[in-house]
Amino acid sequence: MKLLVINPNISADVTALIEAEALRSAGPDTELIVRTAGHGVEYIETRFESLIAAGAVAEIIAEHAAGPASGQVDGIVVAAFGDPGMPALKELVDVPVIGITEAALCAAALQGQRFSIIAISDRITAWYRDCVEHFGLGGRLASIRSINQSLNSIGSVQADFKETLLALSRQAVAEDGADVVILAGAPLAGLARELEGQIPVPVVDGISAGIRMTEAVVALQSGFHRQGAFAPPPVKRRSGLTENLDAALASAQSAHLSAAPAT
Amino acid sequence: MKLLVINPNISADVTALIEAEALRSAGPDTELIVRTAGHGVEYIETRFESLIAAGAVAEIIAEHAAGPASGQVDGIVVAAFGDPGMPALKELVDVPVIGITEAALCAAALQGQRFSIIAISDRITAWYRDCVEHFGLGGRLASIRSINQSLNSIGSVQADFKETLLALSRQAVAEDGADVVILAGAPLAGLARELEGQIPVPVVDGISAGIRMTEAVVALQSGFHRQGAFAPPPVKRRSGLTENLDAALASAQSAHLSAAPAT
Amino acid sequence: MKLLVINPNISADVTALIEAEALRSAGPDTELIVRTAGHGVEYIETRFESLIAAGAVAEIIAEHAAGPASGQVDGIVVAAFGDPGMPALKELVDVPVIGITEAALCAAALQGQRFSIIAISDRITAWYRDCVEHFGLGGRLASIRSINQSLNSIGSVQADFKETLLALSRQAVAEDGADVVILAGAPLAGLARELEGQIPVPVVDGISAGIRMTEAVVALQSGFHRQGAFAPPPVKRRSGLTENLDAALASAQSAHLSAAPAT
Amino acid sequence: MKLLVINPNISADVTALIEAEALRSAGPDTELIVRTAGHGVEYIETRFESLIAAGAVAEIIAEHAAGPASGQVDGIVVAAFGDPGMPALKELVDVPVIGITEAALCAAALQGQRFSIIAISDRITAWYRDCVEHFGLGGRLASIRSINQSLNSIGSVQADFKETLLALSRQAVAEDGADVVILAGAPLAGLARELEGQIPVPVVDGISAGIRMTEAVVALQSGFHRQGAFAPPPVKRRSGLTENLDAALASAQSAHLSAAPAT
Amino acid sequence: MKLLVINPNISADVTALIEAEALRSAGPDTELIVRTAGHGVEYIETRFESLIAAGAVAEIIAEHAAGPASGQVDGIVVAAFGDPGMPALKELVDVPVIGITEAALCAAALQGQRFSIIAISDRITAWYRDCVEHFGLGGRLASIRSINQSLNSIGSVQADFKETLLALSRQAVAEDGADVVILAGAPLAGLARELEGQIPVPVVDGISAGIRMTEAVVALQSGFHRQGAFAPPPVKRRSGLTENLDAALASAQSAHLSAAPAT
Amino acid sequence: MKLLVINPNISADVTALIEAEALRSAGPDTELIVRTAGHGVEYIETRFESLIAAGAVAEIIAEHAAGPASGQVDGIVVAAFGDPGMPALKELVDVPVIGITEAALCAAALQGQRFSIIAISDRITAWYRDCVEHFGLGGRLASIRSINQSLNSIGSVQADFKETLLALSRQAVAEDGADVVILAGAPLAGLARELEGQIPVPVVDGISAGIRMTEAVVALQSGFHRQGAFAPPPVKRRSGLTENLDAALASAQSAHLSAAPAT
Repeated sequence: MKLLVINPNISADVTALIEAEALRSAGPDTELIVRTAGHGVEYIETRFESLIAAGAVAEIIAEHAAGPASGQVDGIVVAAFGDPGMPALKELVDVPVIGITEAALCAAALQGQRFSIIAISDRITAWYRDCVEHFGLGGRLASIRSINQSLNSIGSVQADFKETLLALSRQAVAEDGADVVILAGAPLAGLARELEGQIPVPVVDGISAGIRMTEAVVALQSGFHRQGAFAPPPVKRRSGLTENLDAALASAQSAHLSAAPAT
Repeated sequence: MKLLVINPNISADVTALIEAEALRSAGPDTELIVRTAGHGVEYIETRFESLIAAGAVAEIIAEHAAGPASGQVDGIVVAAFGDPGMPALKELVDVPVIGITEAALCAAALQGQRFSIIAISDRITAWYRDCVEHFGLGGRLASIRSINQSLNSIGSVQADFKETLLALSRQAVAEDGADVVILAGAPLAGLARELEGQIPVPVVDGISAGIRMTEAVVALQSGFHRQGAFAPPPVKRRSGLTENLDAALASAQSAHLSAAPAT
Repeated sequence: MKLLVINPNISADVTALIEAEALRSAGPDTELIVRTAGHGVEYIETRFESLIAAGAVAEIIAEHAAGPASGQVDGIVVAAFGDPGMPALKELVDVPVIGITEAALCAAALQGQRFSIIAISDRITAWYRDCVEHFGLGGRLASIRSINQSLNSIGSVQADFKETLLALSRQAVAEDGADVVILAGAPLAGLARELEGQIPVPVVDGISAGIRMTEAVVALQSGFHRQGAFAPPPVKRRSGLTENLDAALASAQSAHLSAAPAT
Repeated sequence: MKLLVINPNISADVTALIEAEALRSAGPDTELIVRTAGHGVEYIETRFESLIAAGAVAEIIAEHAAGPASGQVDGIVVAAFGDPGMPALKELVDVPVIGITEAALCAAALQGQRFSIIAISDRITAWYRDCVEHFGLGGRLASIRSINQSLNSIGSVQADFKETLLALSRQAVAEDGADVVILAGAPLAGLARELEGQIPVPVVDGISAGIRMTEAVVALQSGFHRQGAFAPPPVKRRSGLTENLDAALASAQSAHLSAAPAT
Repeated sequence: MKLLVINPNISADVTALIEAEALRSAGPDTELIVRTAGHGVEYIETRFESLIAAGAVAEIIAEHAAGPASGQVDGIVVAAFGDPGMPALKELVDVPVIGITEAALCAAALQGQRFSIIAISDRITAWYRDCVEHFGLGGRLASIRSINQSLNSIGSVQADFKETLLALSRQAVAEDGADVVILAGAPLAGLARELEGQIPVPVVDGISAGIRMTEAVVALQSGFHRQGAFAPPPVKRRSGLTENLDAALASAQSAHLSAAPAT
Repeated sequence: MKLLVINPNISADVTALIEAEALRSAGPDTELIVRTAGHGVEYIETRFESLIAAGAVAEIIAEHAAGPASGQVDGIVVAAFGDPGMPALKELVDVPVIGITEAALCAAALQGQRFSIIAISDRITAWYRDCVEHFGLGGRLASIRSINQSLNSIGSVQADFKETLLALSRQAVAEDGADVVILAGAPLAGLARELEGQIPVPVVDGISAGIRMTEAVVALQSGFHRQGAFAPPPVKRRSGLTENLDAALASAQSAHLSAAPAT
């Protein structure tokens, strides 16, 4: 299967981290296309930055949906913790679009009862909390712990703060009752592998979970949204959208119309 | 005080309805600037359409924030039910930014215990429900009832479906236990006045509530977000943003830096 | 418009604080009538004291409702944090009756996601927590922090403990994740103005919020409760009530009967 | 043990129903004192009527607490569904004060997972729902079903509507998934015995549950509230209270002071 | 009445503690049959140990249900905190089957608003939390505090750690806002009596609450589950069950069939 | 990888359905071992039947864990909707143990916001609802709809009731707002494939989801539970357990002790 993996941040070095971990995680028959947001910020920490990123992710999805058949993919992974644009982006195309947070939450929830999230900055935690609550698993969140120092460079966070991240993870287990720890955020991609055995509970990497859970959902071939809240948006007047987005909406709607069951 | 009222839909006729009701509602000393989304769809019914609209609203806010002092406003009303871009947009400027849904929910919650929302289409209800739950008042939602016929024209919904809307409102009271009814959506702006006395509980109009509640919050002069999740986003590399948005972020951050308390 | 502002405590010095802040907050066209509870305790800290206060507030509302037309008001503010008698008191008259807590919660919820309440005594916090949960916004409560020393005099709390209150507010932001701070309780009326700029998030004063939110709701003219859980209590045998309360109930019921729609 | 059973309604015929069922339910060593509210309404259906009733119940409790030792009781049952004045009344005296709703909810929750409440009027259901939610068991409420006709006489409801109440109970089981049915309200006292075997799940009578659960809690001798939110209200200036209430508060506080542990 | 009290642990010394406290607690007309689990572990601390215990408890219940009439009981108390097998075990017989946790939660909830649980080991707290949440009272749980040292012997926990348990209880009141403290677990049976007066809020003993609450529910004679989720399991092919369990299921089902109302 | 798939029911024909769908679903490198419960009932519909099944599943897991290395597996799928024994069974071995309900809930939650469950009997729905609520996704459950006729044979349910199941699924979408439909229960294994395109939203098959989600979690290699609530139960006296279960507990504990980090 072919998966499109989108970095909603504009940082090429984070994209590199994502790509490396995605390649390590993907199954043997999975082909990956990795893209970086065309506009936005270096790394997303706030609800507003996430809103901007959601628009950038929509453009990349639309570009693929509207493009030549060779660009068609079987599933899409939105590779920033906090899941910018979710679940709205699921309306846009007929293949699964999955955020790494929701994937990581599922991977954690299947391995324990309560989980903690380890985050790269204090500011980012409010947005993460919203995301967990909107997904519906707020009752299983043991804690969110975060680095409270400023970062040198987003590409080197995991190297610069490895000991801190390890300590935060262990505190989450010992003090907050976490059964599973989620190392959150694309900048931490791959760290879970490196810390293997040093944290006394299962540790979930967002990128790995995103790839594996999306592979699983794609494989299920559950069918399309032709009714309900995730069917393509109804046909109506549009204006001022980018060419790709306009084409993607038009194409989604016509698929919808042609395939709608007679019921 | 001066309020910026933004129609997140691209429909000029809905903007006209908004403006008319906003003028009827505003206090004597309130000046209104009413703007229509520069891109997007005719009227928002889905989560994805709301995501697109959120970007369009951000641009208008940024344009005012980044513009000349004469464009400065004391508060901003986002005039589509479902509150596209909320609460993220509250980070962008130093004045209150309030959605008509959250305003209507507060107006309803102060007048009764449980409320129902009357909506213009079945498809729109999933997005509205999300909005109520994210605001935290899902436990007080008696029901969402909606027109289940297709609309002729978004500008004439309230005229075309007045009897239906009245019947849905009365059913919400009699069958769902609504203590207050919210007539949702900018296309219904002003209808509550017209139905006065025909629905046996208080009826809240989104636009009126948006104007009055924003006036109230502006008048409170509660102060600025210099820390916490609604302070301006941290300074970091940005790219590909519109000129206005880039300038607004830069300006918000510098206000933040200069005004931060010494704590 | 004319608002009746009721201090549910028997303390005249708290009434003076309420009146001063209410006058500072009210719009230019708002006339205020400020009253003190006829019986009860010096200041309410417990659920039982609130129950007693609710009865005293009901008497004052009834007195105005049953009195001469010159006493008629357009809205009523119940000016003790914890909202004694709410939402029951909304049944008694045909004008909005709003507690300062519910008003402050709305003012806070429109300016951020999570809020903290700063309270004058440890004992009072259980009652406040009930109030927030009953209003439905418990999920957005970051914390309640309180003075844990005994008070010299209820009228001088804000002067005696200004530094403590400031420290508690800053802790709520830094440690509890509050986006907005509510300075709770009539004895703290006006303190938010004085601390302006010293707390790095918006600060909501209960009395100001009570006045401004009630003005907003009164201005909406949403209509009356003729059915549902806030219509006047059904006509039935009563005994032992004060003359005013008996008359107010009789009058509410007859308004109800005469105005009920034919539905 | 000696239990004080208070009818918060002013109806002597409801008191008679309560007394008859309480006598049938009480253990062999339980002595009952049954009292009727000194002021209020014929039967409570609304939040406001409940507020008035709460004051009347407080007076009767205070009268016993402040009276001669011969009037001392070991526990108090507040015998109106909806639990007027709860949990506030638990602060006033050093013996358990228990409402028949909370008792019935416990009796139901110990016999099944989800329960329904059968009520005597549509208007009363909003207040009942509040009560269940405030007790914390809202998630286990299958439904509230109610008679939607007007009542001839509060004393004859169960005779007049026996078939209706039976039908509502069976619908709650068959359609709403109730594992247990609660026949709510003092006017239905004793009906559960009469319907024995006609409803295919356990049926809980509020009065019986109130008596038996209070006996159980009294027998546990769990000790007193000397700290926390149910300790007697702190000593402070009071005015305008009835002599009994004033004396009861004074007495509760002095017990508190003398018995407080040194911690 | 005759109650069967089952220790789901295999420890005879814990059974002795249970029996002693049960005898002290039971009413004068209550006869007790106390049994120890036939298989399992020394004391239950984990969800899996609880699962094993649930099977052992089912066997004892089945043995009584399937046995001679002389073994018939009026109610059953499952005497391990955490309520192994609840609420499933309520399906098996036609008499109330009640866990000591659910009984203690009710006893606590009737005496205050928020309660804390004092537990004998850190590991046990996750299971206890599940139990409170599944019962539906998670919103009233102030905290679970636990001994974090290893135990010498399960039979001597209360003697070995009396001071620790007292300190944990007082912290729950002073720091967590507990209105009531529950001393959890059969190994602590009887300790509440010993600590009387040393903890400044009511203290609930699980075993006492289990006995008294079960007596109360048995006395209510609420009737049987003939429909709904607690009726005996439907008749179907079974295999490999113990003789007692097989007989108990057969007998429950035939009671069900013969007694089902015609509706 | 090697997965152990356990049918908690005793029905060989249901095991055949499970095996067929599991083989269709599994990835090319997945080897399946399919086992049937050694004791229990024909198909599980109630909480008590699930309790019995949980014990039977534990025995099969223990047998593999305690057996020769050739029996070792990489993951375990508990193949009855309702997830008997979950999450307790996750404590027993060092590989992921996943129920088909939790897998299906994740697969549904990643494809839409609200989901409905289609079930084979009315009685079964209470147990399913518990399961969804305990997993934490109760807020996203649109409805549970079920066949309300008696079944001829558990092996032929999907053939006998195909039209009914299709109609229930469509009603869930049209009337309950389901974005995704889950066809629940091993007896419906494979039906989702057959109904492809006839239901206008994605349809999730429990067995397929169980296989694919378990493959994904196994592939993540998240590490072991050495602390927290899912570590192997502490070493303590045991008695009366089957040989396999006793050996499995002993082996789990020794792995735990040897591998525990020094922290």
